[in-house]
Amino acid sequence: MSQALAIGQESSAVHAAFEPRSIAVVGASEDMGKFGGRILHYLLHHRFAGQIFPVNATRDQVCGLDAYASLDDLPSTPDLVVICVPQRHVHGVVESAGRLGVGVAVVVSNGFADAGDEGRQQEQVLVALAQRHGLRLVGPNCMGFVSAATGVIVCSSNILAIDSVPTGGVGFISQSGAVLMALMDCGFRQGIGFSHCVTLGNQADLELCDFVEYLLEDDATQVICTYVEGLKDAERFQRLARRAAAQNKPWIMLKSGRTAAGAEAAYSHTASLAGSYQAFETVCRENGIILVEDVESLLCLAAILEKFPGQRLDRVALSSTSGGSLALCADRLSDEGIKLAELSSETLDKLHEHYPASVSNPVDIGVATQGALGRVARPTAEILLSDPGVDIFLPVLSTAPDVHALTQWYIEGAEAAGDKPYLVVLQPAALADSTRLELRRRGIAFVDSFDALARALRAWKQTMAAPRKPADCERPAGLPAPGTIAAPSGAMDETQAKTLLDRYGIRTNLGVTCTTPEQAGEAAANMQFPVVVKIVSPDIVHKSDMGGVALNLDSVEAVEQAARDMAARITAADSSLRLEGFSVQEQATGKMELVLGVNTDEQFGPMIVFGAGGTLVEILSDVAVASAPVARATARALLERLRIYKVLAGARGNAPLDIDAVAEQIERLSWLAEDFKDSLQELDINPLLVDDEGRGAVAVDARALFKK
Amino acid sequence: MSQALAIGQESSAVHAAFEPRSIAVVGASEDMGKFGGRILHYLLHHRFAGQIFPVNATRDQVCGLDAYASLDDLPSTPDLVVICVPQRHVHGVVESAGRLGVGVAVVVSNGFADAGDEGRQQEQVLVALAQRHGLRLVGPNCMGFVSAATGVIVCSSNILAIDSVPTGGVGFISQSGAVLMALMDCGFRQGIGFSHCVTLGNQADLELCDFVEYLLEDDATQVICTYVEGLKDAERFQRLARRAAAQNKPWIMLKSGRTAAGAEAAYSHTASLAGSYQAFETVCRENGIILVEDVESLLCLAAILEKFPGQRLDRVALSSTSGGSLALCADRLSDEGIKLAELSSETLDKLHEHYPASVSNPVDIGVATQGALGRVARPTAEILLSDPGVDIFLPVLSTAPDVHALTQWYIEGAEAAGDKPYLVVLQPAALADSTRLELRRRGIAFVDSFDALARALRAWKQTMAAPRKPADCERPAGLPAPGTIAAPSGAMDETQAKTLLDRYGIRTNLGVTCTTPEQAGEAAANMQFPVVVKIVSPDIVHKSDMGGVALNLDSVEAVEQAARDMAARITAADSSLRLEGFSVQEQATGKMELVLGVNTDEQFGPMIVFGAGGTLVEILSDVAVASAPVARATARALLERLRIYKVLAGARGNAPLDIDAVAEQIERLSWLAEDFKDSLQELDINPLLVDDEGRGAVAVDARALFKK
Repeated sequence: MSQALAIGQESSAVHAAFEPRSIAVVGASEDMGKFGGRILHYLLHHRFAGQIFPVNATRDQVCGLDAYASLDDLPSTPDLVVICVPQRHVHGVVESAGRLGVGVAVVVSNGFADAGDEGRQQEQVLVALAQRHGLRLVGPNCMGFVSAATGVIVCSSNILAIDSVPTGGVGFISQSGAVLMALMDCGFRQGIGFSHCVTLGNQADLELCDFVEYLLEDDATQVICTYVEGLKDAERFQRLARRAAAQNKPWIMLKSGRTAAGAEAAYSHTASLAGSYQAFETVCRENGIILVEDVESLLCLAAILEKFPGQRLDRVALSSTSGGSLALCADRLSDEGIKLAELSSETLDKLHEHYPASVSNPVDIGVATQGALGRVARPTAEILLSDPGVDIFLPVLSTAPDVHALTQWYIEGAEAAGDKPYLVVLQPAALADSTRLELRRRGIAFVDSFDALARALRAWKQTMAAPRKPADCERPAGLPAPGTIAAPSGAMDETQAKTLLDRYGIRTNLGVTCTTPEQAGEAAANMQFPVVVKIVSPDIVHKSDMGGVALNLDSVEAVEQAARDMAARITAADSSLRLEGFSVQEQATGKMELVLGVNTDEQFGPMIVFGAGGTLVEILSDVAVASAPVARATARALLERLRIYKVLAGARGNAPLDIDAVAEQIERLSWLAEDFKDSLQELDINPLLVDDEGRGAVAVDARALFKK
Repeated sequence: MSQALAIGQESSAVHAAFEPRSIAVVGASEDMGKFGGRILHYLLHHRFAGQIFPVNATRDQVCGLDAYASLDDLPSTPDLVVICVPQRHVHGVVESAGRLGVGVAVVVSNGFADAGDEGRQQEQVLVALAQRHGLRLVGPNCMGFVSAATGVIVCSSNILAIDSVPTGGVGFISQSGAVLMALMDCGFRQGIGFSHCVTLGNQADLELCDFVEYLLEDDATQVICTYVEGLKDAERFQRLARRAAAQNKPWIMLKSGRTAAGAEAAYSHTASLAGSYQAFETVCRENGIILVEDVESLLCLAAILEKFPGQRLDRVALSSTSGGSLALCADRLSDEGIKLAELSSETLDKLHEHYPASVSNPVDIGVATQGALGRVARPTAEILLSDPGVDIFLPVLSTAPDVHALTQWYIEGAEAAGDKPYLVVLQPAALADSTRLELRRRGIAFVDSFDALARALRAWKQTMAAPRKPADCERPAGLPAPGTIAAPSGAMDETQAKTLLDRYGIRTNLGVTCTTPEQAGEAAANMQFPVVVKIVSPDIVHKSDMGGVALNLDSVEAVEQAARDMAARITAADSSLRLEGFSVQEQATGKMELVLGVNTDEQFGPMIVFGAGGTLVEILSDVAVASAPVARATARALLERLRIYKVLAGARGNAPLDIDAVAEQIERLSWLAEDFKDSLQELDINPLLVDDEGRGAVAVDARALFKK
């Protein structure tokens, strides 16, 4: 629906929601047990600067404000209507709001798509009604929004029972109200300031991307955070991700339904099909969205990026009064692939001036400086951060007698070094609470957990190190023009699949298909021995499991015998299998088996999957995934990230294998997938046999499945 | 030192420390900036029931108590002396205390082994002095101890500025004072109650194991937690671990120096060499110690085990008002290998009575039960926990309007199900603080982080699933009696190593060593072709890297030629290499390459390492480790945990390989390692070539290094 509208309209609808001059709360109440009670209460509590119209048919006043029986009775048309009435009354209220010319309504009421098929129909009717009047909807089944930047707090959550909502650079859009509210509450404690936070509910009209687009345009927002169960518009999502990357505005994503257990829980929640997490992860990585797996690392990373957007974070310097804490922290960082920075000799010399013995990173300021922490903490921080090899300074505050003063000294030093990232790490609980209060007051980022810290930095590093998808992938020469090959239908056997691959310039050992063992022998006589015989049957997928592959055949007689044996064996095992004949192929030579394939994701289109093949498939999952089309350089960069890359590159004195040929096959296959993206469901090349450098790679077996 | 004393004395020394009737604080002060000030202050603040003697040469009174100029001036001999004076005065105080017949002293003062070589000597003198008088020491360089169970708080940390220390079942011994204090402070907030917590300092006399032994005997302690950088007595440590397992008293271990970065930080902290973490991890696993990697999961697991020791924790049931929170939690649990319990049909039927639609695990009580949470939360908890397939119930409290009441309902239901584990999971921050307060008051376990929860359960599960070391490993028949083979010295070449392996019944393809290519040809003439020729040189470790291995030789001529070529090639590459000849071997047949070896750890003795060999070594680390000797059944169980086990067992229609033969070789090698544990440093069989089931496994190459 929203897709049909011109670009920019969504964003202006969000503007209307976040910057109303007047708000009507339909279903306003004094009962804090009701949505309409809490929303009105927090709107007043957080001093909404405009006019508030409580709408309640049975009361003259609500919370000291004049109440109105219906929207039609209001003295003027409100900019925003919040609807908290039972489901059966929602249509009527939306109709009234639409007629009055209200721009946007927040529908808190539930019982729509969240409540089965009938509710889903009701929701469609609701959206149609709103569209007829040009009224935009947030929700239904949402908890409203907290626009701290504009001072508009339209939200039913009791986390708002605080003096004021801390404002800052973090915008947060969430498909779950409860998850967002829990995260905001934790964020408040960690000193994170928010710009605009929105609970999406069922996203009947305005959806995730509408709000992300607003945050991209919003100067108050430094970091975008999202909690997502499933996407409504995968293409727009990717466009916005690229725009965020171009604007250098970090976007941190928490996705649930990553695992089977999580996906099931998410589905029963909002009936959002989680989709393939592999595809989701791939497009996030390709477009620079930072994926995190837990709430603590999301908040930690948001805290850092809010203060220090766009800076490197992977080479860390640590200091503490506790050697034990430093050891534990260094261990957790190492676990997650985060390295302690190597200090320059200049830095080491400068540090040495302040310490009786030599020190290095991490810097234990306790041992060598009995009672003189104040004298060393400040220069230690400044010297460490001034080293160009240090990206971020992490003072670890343990239970030193004066945690508070020590924190202050470290901060002074860090700030003296200029605008480089630092993050205070507070290990104790109550002992550091007054320090937390002070850091919050001063807007200084801190974290309480080594684990959250390590995971946050890993998430950042992984995203930054991943190859991005180039804006334009050039179509390689020699491919058939798109559309020149008619889209096939149904399953393709090996010969058909290899014929198609061959058209796209992917080398195969395409064989000759024969009906009888004797024909197979004749075909082999025209080939270079040794040859391979494979059974041809529409019913057999894993040929070798059924004894349907014979290798190393070096004479016509051997070929005939193998074909006869194979047919007899398979028929004996299951006489219902249809045997159509035999494929005779020259035996491909190579040093390593890879797999290369296409999985077409319903939302994100064709994904090219490639990696370790053969026995390794049983041992580990070592595959890379890229969305089609894949540039050759990207394919190569992804190959370099595989564990088997060491072997491809020539481990232990072996010759390197033909990595360029593999990258080229990946590129070509990705264009095939792109050309047939509306019909191709999956395609597997298994194995792709890679030979020494310069000797190529050949698709030894292949199959494909197209939509019927 | 402590090893020389009779068993039980250490434990009585710890009793004396934790249960004194009178305490002298030498260096007592009113200045909270000083150790002696804080220790006296917290001793008074936490109302030590016995007599306190401040010792201070310059004051008549300290903190309202009569002060004494020296220990000799006290009216009676104190049971415990706490020493907080500068390092240069410590010897004198210890001498006095010893002379007076004091049983135990806590030396807070630092500047001993923590301060270089001179300090280390001072520490030795100090211990000798104390030993002469039968005085036992805690420390030096420690922060004292908190014996909450006996009400004796002898500790300098400001985390003690609280009304009272929560007592409970968690005993904690730590090699770092700051780490322990930070953990206790966090533990207080999480409602964990402590029995005895000790900071070890330099462990000059009383060490980790002395206190662990006390905790094993202590009825107040339900769970033992330890923070360790390096061990003093590895054998006693293992004995105590076995005793803890036999007593069913869980022991949770946080070890720093697991990674290179952490080990370096730990070393510069207490000069404890971290040792090989692989060996440490192995003996912990073999003896049932639960290893954790971060403080949050340690505290979470301690909280669960304190309330529910000895119960299964791996099949979880979840419930919440927030579907999003359930999805996130299920994802994190899955990441760490923790499964959602499958509910019985009886359980599902019972649940269905309370819900309009059918529900399953995780149970989202929000969607289906608008406004009737009280009615369903209680039976939901009770029904879930009553399912025998559910080990632990995890109510996830998000930002429901009344978190507090909902928590209460869940708890009532969980407790109605009997004494099965449950843990309250609190997602919000401030919104849940009053709930936290109440849970602490009532002694109910809770956690704030999905991440800590998932890691805690994983640590528990991993330990419980690991094969334990049997109390007795039977020596297999046919081995040479220990001591019958003289311990070799220095490096062993392939032939020597294979000869030794052969004596232990480990199959090798022991070859014939020849000096010239012609002799090699003659030797081959007496063998089954194909054969292999390998260079013999004391200077070449990786023969194949140097072109020193020729395979598939099928004639005398081919052997002679290969030997000549190899010698010429190697000499051309580096003429300084000493070539002693050629080894000619029948070519071993097999389907898969493994590695099998011995690494003798300085602390824990010989470790048997085995796993994936060949190219896989470049791709992944897939090895198991066991301390020698290894029972055959244990070897087999460990093989089953390897990733390559699928291939060993016959993946994708391939025949299974000879796993029994591999297990037997592991067992035999482990006894070889045990017999030579005082001299063998390392031994490598690479590859061990495994053939089909019933066809054995053969050591194709081997080398060893003994102490000179």
